[in-house]
Amino acid sequence: MPRSEFDLIATLFAPLARSKGALGLRDDVALLAPRPGHELVLTTDAIIAGVDFFPNDPPDTIAKKALRVNLSDLAAKGAEPLGYLLTLALPKRVNEAWLRAFTRGLEADQKVFGITLLGGDLSSTRGPLTISVTAFGHVERGKAILRSGAKPGDLVFVSGSLGDSGAGLAALLAKKRTSKFIARYRVPEPRMALGLALSGVAHAAIDVSDGLLADLGHIADVSNVRIEVDAARVPTSHEVVAAVTVGDDYEIAFTAPKSKRAQVLALARKVRVTISEIGRVTKGSGVVLRDAHGKDITPRRKGWQHF
Amino acid sequence: MPRSEFDLIATLFAPLARSKGALGLRDDVALLAPRPGHELVLTTDAIIAGVDFFPNDPPDTIAKKALRVNLSDLAAKGAEPLGYLLTLALPKRVNEAWLRAFTRGLEADQKVFGITLLGGDLSSTRGPLTISVTAFGHVERGKAILRSGAKPGDLVFVSGSLGDSGAGLAALLAKKRTSKFIARYRVPEPRMALGLALSGVAHAAIDVSDGLLADLGHIADVSNVRIEVDAARVPTSHEVVAAVTVGDDYEIAFTAPKSKRAQVLALARKVRVTISEIGRVTKGSGVVLRDAHGKDITPRRKGWQHF
Repeated sequence: MPRSEFDLIATLFAPLARSKGALGLRDDVALLAPRPGHELVLTTDAIIAGVDFFPNDPPDTIAKKALRVNLSDLAAKGAEPLGYLLTLALPKRVNEAWLRAFTRGLEADQKVFGITLLGGDLSSTRGPLTISVTAFGHVERGKAILRSGAKPGDLVFVSGSLGDSGAGLAALLAKKRTSKFIARYRVPEPRMALGLALSGVAHAAIDVSDGLLADLGHIADVSNVRIEVDAARVPTSHEVVAAVTVGDDYEIAFTAPKSKRAQVLALARKVRVTISEIGRVTKGSGVVLRDAHGKDITPRRKGWQHF
Repeated sequence: MPRSEFDLIATLFAPLARSKGALGLRDDVALLAPRPGHELVLTTDAIIAGVDFFPNDPPDTIAKKALRVNLSDLAAKGAEPLGYLLTLALPKRVNEAWLRAFTRGLEADQKVFGITLLGGDLSSTRGPLTISVTAFGHVERGKAILRSGAKPGDLVFVSGSLGDSGAGLAALLAKKRTSKFIARYRVPEPRMALGLALSGVAHAAIDVSDGLLADLGHIADVSNVRIEVDAARVPTSHEVVAAVTVGDDYEIAFTAPKSKRAQVLALARKVRVTISEIGRVTKGSGVVLRDAHGKDITPRRKGWQHF
């Protein structure tokens, strides 16, 4: 890396810092205030070369993935995104051309999602390229959709379709570089409009990152309920057990009271996202996958484990 | 690492998440609102094994350093700390005993600084141990002390003494394990009370992390002024040019109008921190170190460069 940290920040990153509170990336801090009556929603996720993306993925798609896995967390809480902090740990072989393409990816997604870079930290590492994003959104005070609100009697829904990102990963591992699913793996589509629309409708929500069953399991744990999923109703073009455990989908899984079924389906049309009703919340604990005959076919491994 | 990510979070980290907005670390997000009339101050800094600390440093001191380098940024802005997000990238050889000692360090500093863990991200890495903290504080709206406020005619001050942390690093590199300076390198002392007291008094401030001259250079750049430092007045028990370039001091360097000299010295007594007047702000650009005869003795390398 021939240029100094300060040069790189001034030329490549400062143009991305468009809010007054970002202080042009020329201070150690950023200032941020939620809209009156709102509270900030914070989330942070790191993606690591060789774990969450391939080192030779196009740099702009790596940038987008780093942002979008975080924006997806905001979406699932019904939050409107505001901005992000970016921490890069760069191995020596990352050069300026790579960084320029990377910042073009950030730039493009800032426009798509209406967000701004607020600050960050740049350092070198002997390890793999690591990109850590902390994203900020806001919601009306008390209106965030949490994992903890699911109630027995709720219906369970999921947006979009599952397993495409996993199929993209499998294609990349098998060096089938023409698979249409690779784009889904590299650049997820966080469901921002759906999340905003679900505020006040959904009882509980989560974005599907670890795997549908694992993520619904998180809702079940925190809400102290049991969640039953009908395999036949899972929206996927892949083998169902694979699709509900592979993760990286960044769809929103949520529960809502039966009385709001029609409202859920109407808002799905409004935000142009398919939504499938896939199960129900009952008393009890854990998550269960049932076949068309009601038989428990829950796999032992419900999703991704980070280690 | 024998236990799952979720187990580790539940047993070691959830007890550190004491605010309601942390949601017990059982959601993907945290909620945070500044006090009415205040805005949030955000800062993020990562520390990396082999760069910012030694892999065999005591885990509790590594935890404290990760927090304190961030709290120091808040201090320099006059912000009151609230909480933090923690992202850990753990190599395989980090075991549970290490993590337990690490979280004890976090726990101790949460008490010292009145902060809480808000959330984070845990992953494994084939690279070095990396600890990324995003810290949150708040200030009255518009009252943050920025780098950009220095004015010709201001005096330049610095708290405490410089070069001790660098001497600690040198001692560790030379395997002189009994040096009294090692503790200063491992566990910096962010000047929270001083920072709060400087709000409304200082025109510009920065914490000394890269090296006094480099950091005053940042103020000079952003404020479009020149800063002159008198070598003879730099508070240090080490060789002056080393002390003003070595960095990692986490003292606060600031400028204030001449009319507030007495107020600055009074508040220093009140918060029990020594403050030295070391120079002046003039028209022009850059930073200059002068010897007792007024001769320019500015070293070419003014501080730490991250790469």
